[in-house]
Amino acid sequence: MRVRYGMVGGGEGAFIGAVHRMAARLDDSYELVCGAFSSSAEKSQRSGRALGLDPARCYDDFASMMAAEAALPAAARMQCVVITTPNRTHLPIALAALAHGFHVLSDKPATASLEECRTLAARLRSSGLHYGLTHPYTAYPMVREARARIARGELGVIRRIIVEYTQGWLAAPLEKQGQKQASWRLDPAQAGVSCCMGDIGVHAFNLAEFVSGLAVRELAAELNSFGEGRRLDDDGAVLLRFDQGARGVLVASQICTGEENNLRLRIYGDRAGIDWQQMEPNSLWLRPLDGPAQLLRTGVAGTGAEAAAVTRIPSGHPEGYIEAFANVFREFAALLSEDVKPAATGNAVPGISAALRGMAFVETAVASSAAGTAWQALPHL
Amino acid sequence: MRVRYGMVGGGEGAFIGAVHRMAARLDDSYELVCGAFSSSAEKSQRSGRALGLDPARCYDDFASMMAAEAALPAAARMQCVVITTPNRTHLPIALAALAHGFHVLSDKPATASLEECRTLAARLRSSGLHYGLTHPYTAYPMVREARARIARGELGVIRRIIVEYTQGWLAAPLEKQGQKQASWRLDPAQAGVSCCMGDIGVHAFNLAEFVSGLAVRELAAELNSFGEGRRLDDDGAVLLRFDQGARGVLVASQICTGEENNLRLRIYGDRAGIDWQQMEPNSLWLRPLDGPAQLLRTGVAGTGAEAAAVTRIPSGHPEGYIEAFANVFREFAALLSEDVKPAATGNAVPGISAALRGMAFVETAVASSAAGTAWQALPHL
Amino acid sequence: MRVRYGMVGGGEGAFIGAVHRMAARLDDSYELVCGAFSSSAEKSQRSGRALGLDPARCYDDFASMMAAEAALPAAARMQCVVITTPNRTHLPIALAALAHGFHVLSDKPATASLEECRTLAARLRSSGLHYGLTHPYTAYPMVREARARIARGELGVIRRIIVEYTQGWLAAPLEKQGQKQASWRLDPAQAGVSCCMGDIGVHAFNLAEFVSGLAVRELAAELNSFGEGRRLDDDGAVLLRFDQGARGVLVASQICTGEENNLRLRIYGDRAGIDWQQMEPNSLWLRPLDGPAQLLRTGVAGTGAEAAAVTRIPSGHPEGYIEAFANVFREFAALLSEDVKPAATGNAVPGISAALRGMAFVETAVASSAAGTAWQALPHL
Amino acid sequence: MRVRYGMVGGGEGAFIGAVHRMAARLDDSYELVCGAFSSSAEKSQRSGRALGLDPARCYDDFASMMAAEAALPAAARMQCVVITTPNRTHLPIALAALAHGFHVLSDKPATASLEECRTLAARLRSSGLHYGLTHPYTAYPMVREARARIARGELGVIRRIIVEYTQGWLAAPLEKQGQKQASWRLDPAQAGVSCCMGDIGVHAFNLAEFVSGLAVRELAAELNSFGEGRRLDDDGAVLLRFDQGARGVLVASQICTGEENNLRLRIYGDRAGIDWQQMEPNSLWLRPLDGPAQLLRTGVAGTGAEAAAVTRIPSGHPEGYIEAFANVFREFAALLSEDVKPAATGNAVPGISAALRGMAFVETAVASSAAGTAWQALPHL
Repeated sequence: MRVRYGMVGGGEGAFIGAVHRMAARLDDSYELVCGAFSSSAEKSQRSGRALGLDPARCYDDFASMMAAEAALPAAARMQCVVITTPNRTHLPIALAALAHGFHVLSDKPATASLEECRTLAARLRSSGLHYGLTHPYTAYPMVREARARIARGELGVIRRIIVEYTQGWLAAPLEKQGQKQASWRLDPAQAGVSCCMGDIGVHAFNLAEFVSGLAVRELAAELNSFGEGRRLDDDGAVLLRFDQGARGVLVASQICTGEENNLRLRIYGDRAGIDWQQMEPNSLWLRPLDGPAQLLRTGVAGTGAEAAAVTRIPSGHPEGYIEAFANVFREFAALLSEDVKPAATGNAVPGISAALRGMAFVETAVASSAAGTAWQALPHL
Repeated sequence: MRVRYGMVGGGEGAFIGAVHRMAARLDDSYELVCGAFSSSAEKSQRSGRALGLDPARCYDDFASMMAAEAALPAAARMQCVVITTPNRTHLPIALAALAHGFHVLSDKPATASLEECRTLAARLRSSGLHYGLTHPYTAYPMVREARARIARGELGVIRRIIVEYTQGWLAAPLEKQGQKQASWRLDPAQAGVSCCMGDIGVHAFNLAEFVSGLAVRELAAELNSFGEGRRLDDDGAVLLRFDQGARGVLVASQICTGEENNLRLRIYGDRAGIDWQQMEPNSLWLRPLDGPAQLLRTGVAGTGAEAAAVTRIPSGHPEGYIEAFANVFREFAALLSEDVKPAATGNAVPGISAALRGMAFVETAVASSAAGTAWQALPHL
Repeated sequence: MRVRYGMVGGGEGAFIGAVHRMAARLDDSYELVCGAFSSSAEKSQRSGRALGLDPARCYDDFASMMAAEAALPAAARMQCVVITTPNRTHLPIALAALAHGFHVLSDKPATASLEECRTLAARLRSSGLHYGLTHPYTAYPMVREARARIARGELGVIRRIIVEYTQGWLAAPLEKQGQKQASWRLDPAQAGVSCCMGDIGVHAFNLAEFVSGLAVRELAAELNSFGEGRRLDDDGAVLLRFDQGARGVLVASQICTGEENNLRLRIYGDRAGIDWQQMEPNSLWLRPLDGPAQLLRTGVAGTGAEAAAVTRIPSGHPEGYIEAFANVFREFAALLSEDVKPAATGNAVPGISAALRGMAFVETAVASSAAGTAWQALPHL
Repeated sequence: MRVRYGMVGGGEGAFIGAVHRMAARLDDSYELVCGAFSSSAEKSQRSGRALGLDPARCYDDFASMMAAEAALPAAARMQCVVITTPNRTHLPIALAALAHGFHVLSDKPATASLEECRTLAARLRSSGLHYGLTHPYTAYPMVREARARIARGELGVIRRIIVEYTQGWLAAPLEKQGQKQASWRLDPAQAGVSCCMGDIGVHAFNLAEFVSGLAVRELAAELNSFGEGRRLDDDGAVLLRFDQGARGVLVASQICTGEENNLRLRIYGDRAGIDWQQMEPNSLWLRPLDGPAQLLRTGVAGTGAEAAAVTRIPSGHPEGYIEAFANVFREFAALLSEDVKPAATGNAVPGISAALRGMAFVETAVASSAAGTAWQALPHL
C-alpha cells in the first residue's frame, strides 16, 4: 500500500512543490490524495484538479484540510502532510497536522525561528508521530558514501571542513521585479530572521554535520545584504568550530553572479580528504595521504552498500536531484508503512534533531554577525 | 486521464524495465495496468503483484495479454504496450500489439534485423497506430539544444562528426559467469546479428543523425570480438559519410575497461563546434570560430526553448537519465492523449523511421566489416 | 645585454632556487654570474661549480659576495641579487645588497615581520634601486586577463571574493622527519610569526588584491596548528573586508590531505563573476549575469593584450608555473636593462608596496587570531 | 660543458624555432652558437644578432653554415644542428649536417617522404652520428608514466586504442590570407604528401606506438580536404591494426572549429585502461577493471621513477609544453655530452626508427585513402 499524502503549498507556479510530487511518484511509495495548494482557494482548486485529485479534497486552506481529512475513514484519509510553503507558515501547518494525527514531511528550514522549532519538537514528542525534513542533498548516493567512509574512520581525525553553497540568482534585484521566490525569501514577515542562511546556508550546515558526523559547537559569522534595500542577508561567511577540534568555513551566497546551485563539501582528516560537489553528484573524490586520488562513482566497484541502497540505475547513467529527493521520500515512507522496506543500511532521513540544529545554526549566525562576528556557542537543544 | 499501459518484460531482476516504469511515473502521464513481465508465468505474477497490479492482469505471456486486454472495455484496457525484452522478441510482440489495436513503445534496437523492421514498418503503416523507440539520449535538454542550434545554422556547414560510446562492462567474460545482461546480448539467437553495435552503437548512430540533422549515406566498419569465444562483436569502429559531405567516426565498445557509459558527440561546422557528453548531460560546449568557448547549461540563460521544454527544475539541480527517459515517455503520451500537452517546440520522440535507420546501420556495419571494411551504402528505406 | 645576477640560497637540494634559475634562463634576459648558495661554504662552492660558475665567484656567504662583487669593474659585477633563503635572512641580505648598490629580487614573504619590511622600504627609498617580489601567480596570462577585465569594469561592483590556497604536504609530521622545507617553515627562528599564512596565505592575499584592484581594510582570522607540537600555524581562515564594501574569505591550509597546490580565486561583481585555478592556469571562467559561462583561454580569441604580453606559445600548448615565474623575471629585467623591452601593457612585477601589504596581512592575521578572531584594521603603510 | 648547437630556420616570426631555443635553455645543457635562421640572408643576420650571436656566425644559408662551422676549431664549432624549417628542406639540411660531422636534432615530420627518410637513415647509419626527432609529447612525465605501466603489464593485453589530435585553426582559409604557418603546410612543394597527417597525425601515431609499445601493422584511412581549393588533407580518420591483435582509431583534424591542440590517447587492456590529454598534461587516468578510477599526477605519490626523471618541480605546480620539449633536448644532450647525465630510467628520445615509422604512417595513410580506404600494410623498414 502506498502512503497517502496531502500537500500544503505547491500550487501553480511553485517550484519546489512539483519537485516533492515527482519525488513522491518516482518509487511509487506515495499517493497524493488531497491538498491545500495555495492561499487562494480558487487557485488551490484549480491546482488540485490539474493534478487529477477529487475536487472535494482540494481544500481552501490547511485548516480545512486537516479537519476534513481527519473526519474521513482511516483507510481513506491522508496519512501525512507534505509542507512546501514559505517558512513562516511551517509551524502552524505542522502543529495542525500533528494535532489531527498526521505525520509531517516538511521543507526546510523547519520553522522561522529556533523558538518555533522548540515548540514543534515538544508537540512532536508528545504526539508519537513522525517528522521528516527534506534536506535532499543528504540523500545522494555519494554523500552517503562519504559519510560511511568517515564513520568507518577512513579519513582519520577530521581537521578542516570547507563547505560552500553559492548561487547567483539574487545578484539582480528580482524582488523588485515581483519574482515570487525572491520576494518572500527576502521578506522577514515570510522568511523569518534570514534569507540566505535560512534558505541555503542551512543546507550547507546540515550537510557538513551529516557527512562529518561532528557537531558544530560555536561559530563566528558575517552576514551581508548586498542588494539595495534588502532587510535580510543575501550572503555570508561563517567560521565553525566542530567537536573534537575540527575547524570549518561555511560560505553561503545568493549574489555570486553566474553560479547556479554550487553546493560543495570538502573534509580533510589526517589520513585522507574527500570532495563532493552537488552539480556532479555521482562523483566523490577521495584523496589519501600517500597515493593517487581516487574518483569514487555511483554504481562503480569500490563504492559501498550505503550508496548502493539509494542508487537506482547502473553506473554512468546519471542520477540527479529528483532522485536524491525521492530517496528522502522513500526513507520517510519506510517509517510510515510496512510495505516500504527500509534500506539494509538504515534510514537516514533528517528529523526533528536536524530541524533544531538547523534553526540553531541560522539564529546563532545572525546573532554572531550582529555582534561583530563574535564567537557564539550554539545553544543546547 | 493518464495513458494506460501494459509492459512486456521487465520482471524481477531486470534493469531497463524498472527504468521504463520510473520514466512513466515521473510526470504522472501513465498508469501501469497490466503486464507479462517474464517468460516464466510464475515470475510474471510475482512481479506484477509486487507492482500493485490486479493479479488478473498479470499475464503468463504477451499473447495472452494482448487477447485478454483487447477483450476488456475500451475505457479499462491498456492503450499501449511497452516492450523491454531481448531483441529477438521485439517483432512478434510489436506485431501482436498492433494486431490488437495497441500502440507500441519499444526498447531499442527495434528488431533483430532490418528485414524484421521492414515488416514492422509495413504493419504499422496499415494500422494507423503510434510507434515509439526509446532512445532516451535524444531527450536530454542539452541534446535538444544542440540540435536546435544546428538546425538554425549556427554551426555553419557541418564537416566532421565524432561520436563515441564506450563501456567497460564486457571487458570481463561475464557471459561465462551467467550474468543475464551479458548472456543474451552475446547470443545471436536472442540479440540478432550484433551485440555492441545493436546495443550501444545504434544509440550513437541515432544521436549523430538526430542532432546533426544529416543522414549517413555510406559506412566502412571494422567490428571485433575481443572476449574469447564470443560470436558477436563487443567492439567496433565505423567511418561514416553523411549527406552534404560531412565525415564521421563512430566508435562503440563494451571492452574499454573502466569506462562506464561514455556516450559523447562532437560536431564541427565551419562556424562553430559542439561537444556533449552523456555523463555530464546538463552541459553543452559551444565553440565558435572566433571567441571563447561557451558552456551552455540546462536552465541557464542562453539555453533555448527546445531545451526548456524538456527541463523540469532550475539550473544547477542536475537532471539525469531517468528524466531524459521520462521525456520520451511524455512525448509519446502526447501522441496518444489529448490530456498530455505536447511541448510548444514540437514532439521529437523517435519513431519507425529511426527504427529502420538504426537497423540499417547495424546490418550495414556488420556487412562492411565482413567485407574487409569496404564502403557500403545504407539501403534505401 | 643580459642582466647579471647573483643568487643567495638555492644550493644543492633546494627547490625554489632552481626554479628561479630556470625562470631566469627561459627568456635569456639574465646571466647567473655568482652566488652564495648555502650557509655551508663548501656546499656553496660545490653548488656554484655545478652551475658552471667561476669558482672565484662562488662565495662563502652573502656578505663576502656583496663586498667582492662591488669591488669588480661595473661591466663585470652582478647587477642584482636574487634571494631564495628562509624568511629570517631576507632582510639582512636585502639590506646588504642595497648598501652595495645592487637591485634585489626576493622570494616571499618579503621579511620575517612588518617592522623589518618597513626598515627595508625605508632603505630602498633612499637607495634609488629596484626591488621585486616573486609572486609568480600574478604573472600567469589568465590572471592578467582577469585583472584587466575587472579594471575595465566588466564585473561591475565587486561584492564577494573567495580565495583559497590549500595544500596537504604538512598533514604528515614532516618536520619531525627532518624534511628541510617543513623544518624551517615551522621554526619561528627561521620563518617568523607564521608558517602557513607567511608561506602561502600571503600569495592568496596578494593575488586577491592584485586581481580585484581592491585593498583589504580589515580582517578577522582564526589560525590553527593541527600538527602536534607545532609552534606556528599550519592552517587558517580569514574573513576580509575590502575597500568599497566587498567581502572576502581566505582559506589557507597545509594540512588539507591530498591537495597539491590548490590556489583558486573567485571574484563576483554585480555584472559577472570570474574563477581561476592555478592547477589549470590557462583557463579562466567568466560568468556573466545573463548568458552562458565563457571559458577564456590563453592564446584563444577573446583573450586580451595583457594576457598576450605574457604568453609565449600558441593556445592548447600549456604554459605552466615556470613560465609564470619567468614572466616576473622578465618584467623585473625590463626595469634594469634597456635591452629588455617592457610589455606594451605595462610592468606588473610586485614591488615593495606588495611586500609591505603582504607582511601587514600576515601580522594582522596572527594578531586577530590571538585576539579571538577580532576584526582588526590593516595598518597604514 | 654545454652542447653547442646551430639552428636552421626559426628566424623572426617563426613559432617553433623559439620553442626549440627556450627548450634548449631551460636546463642549461645547450649553447646556441650559430644559425641560418631564414631563407633571407638579411633576416638571418638580424635574427641572429637579436639572439646575441656573433654576427660572423649568423649565416646566409645552411650550406655556408655547415662549411664555415666545420672549419672552426673543434672546441669552438657547433656540435649539432637543430632543424626547424618546412618539411621539404629537412633532408638536404640533415644530409649536409651529417656530411660535415654534425649531429642532428630535427623537427617532425623527419622528411617529406618515406623514400627521403630511407636515404637519411642510410647516411646516418654510416655516419656514426646521433639523430633525434622532436616529438615533445613523448616527453611529458605522465606519458612516460603511462608507457612504464603498460610495459610492466598493468593494463594486461591491449585491445582498443583511441588516439585523437584535433585542432581548429584551419577551419578558416588562413592560407588564402597569407598566414605563413598555413601556407607552407598546405603547399605540396613545401610540405610533401600531406598536411594534416604529416603535421599532427604523425604525432598521434608516434604517441600511440610509443606508449603502447605496439607497432601498427596495417591501416585503412580516409583523408579529407574540407577547405576549398586545398590540395592536401586537413582532416582524416584512420583505422589501425596493431601487433598482437590490438585495434585502433586515429582521428587527426585541423578543421575542428574551436579545438586548440587537443591530443588525447586512450588505451584499454583487459585489466585496466589509461587516458591522457595533452592540454592537462600533468594528469593521467588509470581505470582498473574492478575498483575506482585513479588520477595519477605529476609529482604525487603513486607516480613512478620514469615520470620523476622528467619532472622538475613539486606537484601542483603545472609543467607544460616547453618543459616537455626541454626533456627531449636534455635527453638528446645526454647522448652527445658526458656532462649531461642521462636519466636513471634511460633515454627515450625518438630517433631514426621513429622517423621512419612516422613517414611510413603518413605515406600509407595517403595511399590507403587514395585506394578507397583499403587496408594497407605499413612497409617493412
